[in-house]
Amino acid sequence: MLSTYSGAVSGVACRAILSSFLSLCMALPLALAFSLVFPHEVRGQTEDMQTEDMQTEDERTVTAIFNERLTTGEMYRLLEDLCKNIGPRLSGSEGAERAVAWGKEVMEGYGFDRVYLQEVMVPHWERGDPEQVRILGVEGGMIELNALAIGGSVPTAPAGITAPVVVVHSIEEVEEIGREAVEGKIVFYNRAFDQTVIATGPGYGGAVDQRFAGPSQAAKFGAVGVVIRSAGSDFGDAPHTGGLRYLDDVERIPAAALGYQSADRLVEALEAQPAARLFMHLSSKWHPDVLSHNVIGEITGSERPDEIILVGGHLDSWDVSEGAHDDGAGVVHSIGVLRTFQKLGIRPRHTIRAVLFMNEENGLRGGLKYAEVAKETGEKHVIALESDSGGFSPRGFGVTAEDDVIERFRSWLPLFPQATISYINKGGGGADIGPLRRETGTPTIGFIPDSQRAFDYHHAPTDVFEVVNRRELELGGASIATLIYLIDKYGLRDEMAQ
Amino acid sequence: MLSTYSGAVSGVACRAILSSFLSLCMALPLALAFSLVFPHEVRGQTEDMQTEDMQTEDERTVTAIFNERLTTGEMYRLLEDLCKNIGPRLSGSEGAERAVAWGKEVMEGYGFDRVYLQEVMVPHWERGDPEQVRILGVEGGMIELNALAIGGSVPTAPAGITAPVVVVHSIEEVEEIGREAVEGKIVFYNRAFDQTVIATGPGYGGAVDQRFAGPSQAAKFGAVGVVIRSAGSDFGDAPHTGGLRYLDDVERIPAAALGYQSADRLVEALEAQPAARLFMHLSSKWHPDVLSHNVIGEITGSERPDEIILVGGHLDSWDVSEGAHDDGAGVVHSIGVLRTFQKLGIRPRHTIRAVLFMNEENGLRGGLKYAEVAKETGEKHVIALESDSGGFSPRGFGVTAEDDVIERFRSWLPLFPQATISYINKGGGGADIGPLRRETGTPTIGFIPDSQRAFDYHHAPTDVFEVVNRRELELGGASIATLIYLIDKYGLRDEMAQ
Repeated sequence: MLSTYSGAVSGVACRAILSSFLSLCMALPLALAFSLVFPHEVRGQTEDMQTEDMQTEDERTVTAIFNERLTTGEMYRLLEDLCKNIGPRLSGSEGAERAVAWGKEVMEGYGFDRVYLQEVMVPHWERGDPEQVRILGVEGGMIELNALAIGGSVPTAPAGITAPVVVVHSIEEVEEIGREAVEGKIVFYNRAFDQTVIATGPGYGGAVDQRFAGPSQAAKFGAVGVVIRSAGSDFGDAPHTGGLRYLDDVERIPAAALGYQSADRLVEALEAQPAARLFMHLSSKWHPDVLSHNVIGEITGSERPDEIILVGGHLDSWDVSEGAHDDGAGVVHSIGVLRTFQKLGIRPRHTIRAVLFMNEENGLRGGLKYAEVAKETGEKHVIALESDSGGFSPRGFGVTAEDDVIERFRSWLPLFPQATISYINKGGGGADIGPLRRETGTPTIGFIPDSQRAFDYHHAPTDVFEVVNRRELELGGASIATLIYLIDKYGLRDEMAQ
Repeated sequence: MLSTYSGAVSGVACRAILSSFLSLCMALPLALAFSLVFPHEVRGQTEDMQTEDMQTEDERTVTAIFNERLTTGEMYRLLEDLCKNIGPRLSGSEGAERAVAWGKEVMEGYGFDRVYLQEVMVPHWERGDPEQVRILGVEGGMIELNALAIGGSVPTAPAGITAPVVVVHSIEEVEEIGREAVEGKIVFYNRAFDQTVIATGPGYGGAVDQRFAGPSQAAKFGAVGVVIRSAGSDFGDAPHTGGLRYLDDVERIPAAALGYQSADRLVEALEAQPAARLFMHLSSKWHPDVLSHNVIGEITGSERPDEIILVGGHLDSWDVSEGAHDDGAGVVHSIGVLRTFQKLGIRPRHTIRAVLFMNEENGLRGGLKYAEVAKETGEKHVIALESDSGGFSPRGFGVTAEDDVIERFRSWLPLFPQATISYINKGGGGADIGPLRRETGTPTIGFIPDSQRAFDYHHAPTDVFEVVNRRELELGGASIATLIYLIDKYGLRDEMAQ
C-alpha cells in the first residue's frame, strides 16, 4: 500500500476539536465534571462546539466515546492485567477467586457508585495431570496425540484405558451402527467444524453436539471412552476443550478432545491399521461445590435509579488458557461502559450495571443465580446486553425484543461510524442473560464482533492476550458503550423516554 | 461462550446441496465442465437445484463462490508459498525476479487461457547492512534504537554521522523553527499515527508525510539526517519502512524510521539530556534500473473477449518482510478470482484479467507501464479493481465511477453474505490502477477489508504469513470474486449488459 486509501473514512469527524475538549474534560476532578454536566450531555459540548461544526449532540458524544477508547487503550491494558496477572480462572479454582477479588478491586478503584458481590455456589472440576492419549499397535510403535479432557469428564482408570476405536461423524451414527459396533470401544467423533458457514458461531453450533452430548450417547451403546475432533476452526494441533453433559441414567465415560492434526493422525493410523488401539489416561476430578460470586458494579441513574440497563460478560474461563477473547473481552467491555461514561462525564438517566458473571463455562450458575435474585427482588431491568463473542472488530448486535424496539435500534445505525456496527439482527442475547430473559421477560442484546478468528482460539490454550488486537477490542467496547448511551438516553420506546 | 450464537447467520444457505454439487463439479475435467455450462451459470444448477430451494441463480453462485474459498483454502496455501518460498521481493532484487517467475508458473499451472509478462524497467535500491541508530551522551553511555532506513534513503558517510537532535511534529514545524534550529542537526519527526481515526488508512495518511516528504523538508533547512516515529498503529518496537521522495533541488540526506518504543526512548533521552546526540549508520545503495515485469493471466471472455475486467494487486514487497498482507493478499485475491471461476465452471462474458503489478512500493513503474500500454493499444477496460489493503475480513468496496454505476453496485449488496461486504463507498481504487484511470478513464474499485490490524504490520518485518487468517483472507477473495462475477454478468449499465 502506498498512499491510496479512498472511501473508508470515519462517519464522525471533528477530531481536533474533540481532542482538546477531551483533555480538558479528563483533567477535571470527576465530581466537578459531573456537577457541570446537563444530563445526557457531554460537558462543554453545547458551549464549545455548537458553532464550530454541524454535528449533532449524539454525533459528538459518539465521537467522544470512540476517541476515548482508541486513544487511551485503557480497557486493553485492563485485559492484559486480567490475562497475565490472574490468568486461567475456571469456576471453583483459586484463579477464579482471585478474579472475583480483581473485578471488585478494579471497579472500586474506579470509584463506581456501587460495587458488590453476589453469592453463588459453583461446580468445581479439575483437569488433573496432563492428558495422555496415544495410538498403539501401529507401524513403528505408538503415536502421541495432543488432547485435553473435555470439561467435566470423569477420569479413566488410574492406569488408563486401552481399546479399539470406532470412527463416527455424528451422534445419530452411533445409534445407526449400534451396540455391536460400539461396545467395549472408544468412539471417535470425527466430524469437523463446517468451514462454509460464514458466521462461525453457527459453524461451531453445528459441531459442538459431539462434545456436549457425544459421551453419553456413546456410553448408551457400551463405549468405554470418547475422543472428538476439536470443535475449532483452525487446522493446528491445539485441542479445544469445553463442557459436556452426562445423562443421569447412563454410565459416565471419559472423554477427550483432540487437536485437528492429531485427529488427522488418528484417521490415518486407523486407515493403515484398523486394529490399532487407543490408550487414554485422564486424571480429572470432581470436587464439592464451592462458594463463588458474580461481581457487580454500577453507576446510579440520575432520573430512574431503579431501572437497570445491564451490560455483562463472564469472569470465569476454561483452565487451559488466559480466557482473553472468552471472555476477558466481555469483562472489560462491560467495565468499560461504566468507565467511559465516567471519564466523559456522561451521567446516565438509568442505572448502568456491569455484571461479571461466574461459571458461564461449566454450569451457568452465575446467570441462573442473577435471574433468581432479580425475580425475587422484583428489580426492573430495561434491557440486558452480553458480550461473549470475543474482542474482535464490531459488526452488529442481535436483539431479542419487540419489533418496534429493534426498528428503533436500527434507526440509530447511522450514528455508528462506518467499519463498526452495520446491522441489528432480530434475535440475540447471551448465555448468562438468558435466564434473566426467561424469568423476568427482560429484552436481551448480544454483541456480534467479526467471528472469523474466534474459533481458532475458543476454549484452547491459544486464547491468550497476544491474540487480541488493541484497536479491535476498544472499537467493540466503544460500540457497546454507544448503544448503551443511546438506550439510556432515548429508552426502548418513546413513552419510556419521558 | 457456550452455545448461544444468535443472530449472525449466513445470508446464503443451501450448503448441503451445494457441497455435493461442488464435489461433483470439481471431479469433472475442466474442459468437460466448461462444455456443459451455459454462460454465467454454474453447471448443473438449473437441473439439480431449481426445485430444491428458493435461491436465485445469483444466490446459488455466490454461495458456491464462498463455499469453494472457505472449504479449500487454496489461496491461503498459495499465499504461504509466496511468503515462505519467495519471501521479500523488493523491485530489482533477486526475490522480485523469483516472484515474477512464480506468478507466471502458478497461473500457467492452473491452465488459464493466457499468461504473459509485460516488461517494465524498475528502480533498484538496496538497504545494505543492518542499520545502526543509537543515542550518545546519555547517562550510562548509549542507547541502541530499532531502526530501518526509509526506502530510497541515501547512505550516511561510511563511518556514520553524529549530530544533535531537534524534535518536530510536522513538516510545517520545520519551517517555523527555521534554519537556525535545524542546521547541522538530525530532525526527529515525532508525530504519531492518529489512533482516533477509525478506518486506519486515513490515520496512516495523516502520519506518512513525515516519512515521504520529511527528509527533503529537513534538508532544505540544513539538517544532516532525519529519523521519524514509524507510521504504524502498533506500540511495539518494529520499525515500519516505506518510501520517501527527495526533491530535485535539495541535498539528499539519510533518513530512518524508528520503532514506536525506540521513538519513546529517544523522546525520554532528549528530555533528560537535551544535548544528547544521535549516531546513524546506513549503508543503503542505489543501483541502475533493472528490467522486470508485470505478470498477467486471463480467462478469455465468451461474448466480449476484447473487453477487460481487471483485478490486480502488487507482486513486489518491501525487503524487510514477507509482504503477506502487503500485498501477497492482493496477489492471491487476484489470481483467486480466475481460479474460482475456473473451478466452479463460471464462464465469463468479458475477459477477466489478473494483473500482478511490479514496483508499487517504490516507483509505481508497473502501474504506469500498464496504463501506457493500455492507452497505446487502445485496449478496452470495463473496470479495474485493486486489492492492496490486506487480507483481513471484507467490509466494503470504494468505487470511482458515475453515480448510476455505484447505485447499481449498491443494489447487489443483499447478495453478499452478512459479515462480508456491507457498503459501497463513492471513491476508490488503488495505486497501481490509478494511472489506468487517468490515462483511459477506466472506472476503478478498491477492496476495503477491516483495517484495524493493517498498520500494525504495514511495511514492517512483522508482515508475515502467520499474521494472515485463513478465513479472513478467503472471505475477502470470495467477496472480490462475487463482485467481479456480478459485473461480468450484468455490466456497469443495462445497455452494456445486452
